[in-house]
Amino acid sequence: MEQKQYQRKIYLEDKPRAEARDEILAAFLQTSEMEMIPAVDALGRVTAEPIFAHVSMPHYHASAMDGIAVIAESTYQAHEQNPQYLSGEQFCFVDTGNAIPTPFNAVIMIEHVHIVDEETIEIIEPATPWQHIRPIGEDIVQEEMLFPQGHLLRPADLGVLLAAQQLTVPVVKKPVVTIIPTGNELVEAHSELAPGKIIEFNGTVFSGFVKDWGGEPRLHSIVKDEPEKIKEVLLEAAETSDIIVINAGSSAGRKDFTVHIIAEIGEVFTHGVAARPGKPVILGKINGKIVVGVPGYPVSAYLALEWFVQPLICKYLGIPVPKRQTVMVKLGRRIVSSMGAEDFIRMNIGYVNGQFVANPLTRAAGVTMSYVRADGLLIVPPHISGYEQGDTAEVELLRPLEEIKNAIVFNGSHDLTIDLLSSQLKRERTEMKIVSSHVGSMAGIMAIRKGEAHVAGIHLLDPSTKQYNISYVNKFLADQDVVLYPFLKRKQGWILPHGNPLGIESVTDLVRTDANFVNRQKGAGTRILFDLLLDEAGLTAEEITGYEREMFSHLAVAAEVKGDVSVAGLGIYPAAKAMGLDFIPVADEEYDLLMKLEFFESDSGRQLIKIIQSPVFKEQVEKIGGYQVVENAVPKRLTEEVKE
Amino acid sequence: MEQKQYQRKIYLEDKPRAEARDEILAAFLQTSEMEMIPAVDALGRVTAEPIFAHVSMPHYHASAMDGIAVIAESTYQAHEQNPQYLSGEQFCFVDTGNAIPTPFNAVIMIEHVHIVDEETIEIIEPATPWQHIRPIGEDIVQEEMLFPQGHLLRPADLGVLLAAQQLTVPVVKKPVVTIIPTGNELVEAHSELAPGKIIEFNGTVFSGFVKDWGGEPRLHSIVKDEPEKIKEVLLEAAETSDIIVINAGSSAGRKDFTVHIIAEIGEVFTHGVAARPGKPVILGKINGKIVVGVPGYPVSAYLALEWFVQPLICKYLGIPVPKRQTVMVKLGRRIVSSMGAEDFIRMNIGYVNGQFVANPLTRAAGVTMSYVRADGLLIVPPHISGYEQGDTAEVELLRPLEEIKNAIVFNGSHDLTIDLLSSQLKRERTEMKIVSSHVGSMAGIMAIRKGEAHVAGIHLLDPSTKQYNISYVNKFLADQDVVLYPFLKRKQGWILPHGNPLGIESVTDLVRTDANFVNRQKGAGTRILFDLLLDEAGLTAEEITGYEREMFSHLAVAAEVKGDVSVAGLGIYPAAKAMGLDFIPVADEEYDLLMKLEFFESDSGRQLIKIIQSPVFKEQVEKIGGYQVVENAVPKRLTEEVKE
Repeated sequence: MEQKQYQRKIYLEDKPRAEARDEILAAFLQTSEMEMIPAVDALGRVTAEPIFAHVSMPHYHASAMDGIAVIAESTYQAHEQNPQYLSGEQFCFVDTGNAIPTPFNAVIMIEHVHIVDEETIEIIEPATPWQHIRPIGEDIVQEEMLFPQGHLLRPADLGVLLAAQQLTVPVVKKPVVTIIPTGNELVEAHSELAPGKIIEFNGTVFSGFVKDWGGEPRLHSIVKDEPEKIKEVLLEAAETSDIIVINAGSSAGRKDFTVHIIAEIGEVFTHGVAARPGKPVILGKINGKIVVGVPGYPVSAYLALEWFVQPLICKYLGIPVPKRQTVMVKLGRRIVSSMGAEDFIRMNIGYVNGQFVANPLTRAAGVTMSYVRADGLLIVPPHISGYEQGDTAEVELLRPLEEIKNAIVFNGSHDLTIDLLSSQLKRERTEMKIVSSHVGSMAGIMAIRKGEAHVAGIHLLDPSTKQYNISYVNKFLADQDVVLYPFLKRKQGWILPHGNPLGIESVTDLVRTDANFVNRQKGAGTRILFDLLLDEAGLTAEEITGYEREMFSHLAVAAEVKGDVSVAGLGIYPAAKAMGLDFIPVADEEYDLLMKLEFFESDSGRQLIKIIQSPVFKEQVEKIGGYQVVENAVPKRLTEEVKE
Repeated sequence: MEQKQYQRKIYLEDKPRAEARDEILAAFLQTSEMEMIPAVDALGRVTAEPIFAHVSMPHYHASAMDGIAVIAESTYQAHEQNPQYLSGEQFCFVDTGNAIPTPFNAVIMIEHVHIVDEETIEIIEPATPWQHIRPIGEDIVQEEMLFPQGHLLRPADLGVLLAAQQLTVPVVKKPVVTIIPTGNELVEAHSELAPGKIIEFNGTVFSGFVKDWGGEPRLHSIVKDEPEKIKEVLLEAAETSDIIVINAGSSAGRKDFTVHIIAEIGEVFTHGVAARPGKPVILGKINGKIVVGVPGYPVSAYLALEWFVQPLICKYLGIPVPKRQTVMVKLGRRIVSSMGAEDFIRMNIGYVNGQFVANPLTRAAGVTMSYVRADGLLIVPPHISGYEQGDTAEVELLRPLEEIKNAIVFNGSHDLTIDLLSSQLKRERTEMKIVSSHVGSMAGIMAIRKGEAHVAGIHLLDPSTKQYNISYVNKFLADQDVVLYPFLKRKQGWILPHGNPLGIESVTDLVRTDANFVNRQKGAGTRILFDLLLDEAGLTAEEITGYEREMFSHLAVAAEVKGDVSVAGLGIYPAAKAMGLDFIPVADEEYDLLMKLEFFESDSGRQLIKIIQSPVFKEQVEKIGGYQVVENAVPKRLTEEVKE
């Protein structure tokens, strides 16, 4: 029995996403319910019926000016050489918006009226009939259709409803979407965290999406992986909801019995779509209600929700599915995609030298931060196997284009102060920020070379000169006009478990103790430093356990060290300090900022330097510890030096 | 004294809008208050401080697959020809997300494992260290900055907060914006409407804008035009709000004393900006709080609010002012603008033949519906006196681009059924709708000719042939391949006050009774019919009182007739019926739809015809009365006939 559970009994389909969606849309037969609500509360709601004006606006002939109301025909003789006098009942004063009393049929602006006394005025120009009078219904005509059904009400629309005396408005009820998180591994967010326990947060994210899309989310409490319990909750949800979302258990593993349950108490239309991530989705129906089973990995789940739940909500509301703004980008890297399936790839987009350059973020479906950090989604259609570096492609935006355009693209080595710098920059200029990718110093230099970044943080020690950075820049950017801005002195050293149980103080100690080393990615300055240490000690990479294990930031190295007493890493002091780890200094290094001269001299560049030099930023950085912002930094304009 | 009030004591400035804005932004010194709220409630809120991760995610080494955990080094000998057996404590089963127990350091996917019995498994491939294991912090690393301050929290962001155990989050309090409507003419929306009374609806619209922008609106009740009362309310608002908006009284008329009050109890920075509409704005400060006095005309008011109140709210929240998406359009008409001032012109945008064509809507600041109907805003800078027809210009979008792209542009004669048609179309296909401009039949023909509309409604009687439409189309569209689709038979006739007090039954009666005729605009089919009636009766336009008075729709004519017993008009039966007016038939006319063959045969065209032919649409139309949808309509492909 136990054994049988381990065998895969089911295989996921590869149904085209659009086909799967159209199937459930056709099967979604909920009648959209209507509710009457006060117009003043209807912001963001969707009209359920066409709405007609109850009264006209204006509902009377209204003066469009401050002035006097007259009978036009009585003014025809007025002329500069022949002023005409009106008195008594021949005119009356009106302000803008006033009703025009009978029998008047024209208004003369107050500026063109000479007031002789309280009873008499003089005019020197005739009025034409109906001049400066707003006709009845100039704005809204009684009985005209103000809005069709399916109209999303905006602020000004509410004004029109009130003006037309439509004080209550029929809107579509928000469809109820019940969200059911399942899994023995799930715990509430406030829980003590034990290994193997995962905080349930997808439900809150789903609720947010459902709200944004116009639905009413109902988040169920966590349900254990017990088929009978899940069955019970699903059947109950089918009674009380318009749409049901069940999270996790949608794949084909040993505990993935959701599909069996739905098949048992309802009907399964689809199990698996040809789209990644998000493939292991279940689409079915229980007692007439559509149920969407989404994968447990967050990014897969969010995409599956967007593919299938958003269209259901929109169908219920009678509105089109909103489309994201798109932008054409140049691809900074080659992108490989599987044939036969759509690939949804999270992208960073930078606006450098007047063009949008996009690079893929991780494709790991479990990395929520990559979705949070993504500027857009590149959707590779099923018949395309990918794109070459430098190709142009269309990307759906996850952020406003303006935000992307105003961001400073920071590349190269990871440092903790870059986020602080970004935060401080944004404080001064809310429209600016730094978007950083931790690709390592060497990749940073290359990004500057290829025009894909504004700034690169680098800390590259030249073994021959024992100098930092300059020789690398001269070598790789000899033909470009760049500036190297001395930014930080920082301490690199061994990051070790608290109390340093293995007693590590050198690379030799690593070998001696057979510690599990955690390395950095190729091209990272820290890795280059480690290689240099190895070299100086006459050791080789093969002698280091874990040499191949690559992390992409100092904090990631520290997190690994924190998790295991047998682990050691090399990194900067603040990372060790943040995690409460031991630190043994190895080098004082120069972490400089590399940028093209053009950027350095631009408004953004100047703003960046201004923040770096500000006392408040220096203070923040030095408070972290292990850092020193370079005082009175002298930017080096490097290619000039080379030329000299 | 009375007289003195009428004299204009003050003149409005023409201060550049940006200068006026920057002044109040500089003077807006409110400290942004922070509040701690649960992360689950933080959707749409703005972070007040940078937020760091409290724990890593995963916070343990997690299996990335369903499979078995092993010590990689113990599997190195496994090979297809040399299966390796693991039993007892040499392996353990893990599911995706499970913690990897010590001392294991790799996972083998269940698909690659042969289960011999409950205690023994067979593998035929070695594992590499750390394969299929998610390292600690793969997604979120403890202590990393998740978000800077000034970050608008989206659904996925809430997930990250929970996952990182940041259960409460510091957000910026919503700035309180008190909105004060003033004016003796204002009444609550539910009031009985008397001439000269205007429904107060701007306050609700302002509240909606403030909400959308992230502020907390507080709508004050209507305040009478009494300086002492206004003063009192302003001073109270300065105590309780971050920003004050006072509506109307901002111009320079006899009751516009707002500026004097602000000057008296505070400080006035600006009175009048070089932008239209919205020029008569007041920017000032009372007891340290910024006060914005906006004009009474709705469109002016909405623009002024956007210019000045939105940036204040954004400054408080620490976010950039969002920019609207823009699109390049071809201008369908000449646009004249005053030098020295910006012009904000409401535009209709149609997507016809693969290009965006935009035409201005009315510029009247009092016409709310023009703002509601506008697809975009054309902003003419102060140094430009306008654009020529056919010029290309950039327009800020007030609707999603997709909505504009999917709309059928309907031009030509006004008919009440077009809104019904649009509504029915939208019911079938939520992404589609009809956008109509009532420009008259002749202008409709020209719009088709110029490629600025998809469909034109026309009803043009040829006096010589007594036939409708065909001769006009043949004359003006001889060189184009168009289709004339027989749509409606409808009744035209005299629209008269209830009971027809003047006893009008013909044009001769109009002259006899000296009734106030209300005409339609030049090129309207109804006007052409009227001219024909005049001609037949041997009368001239000069003999008709009100011949020059032009309305743009049947309903507008009916509204005028309803407002005055001395008025008469010509129009369609349903308009008279809707307003409860008398109607005397004059002609049964053919109201046809003109379109290019290409559109007729397109998906949109077919969809349109399908709706017209549907029983449900016919039923709706005939329920109105005075209409007959043409049964078994035979579309005429006209230019072919010409060629034959």
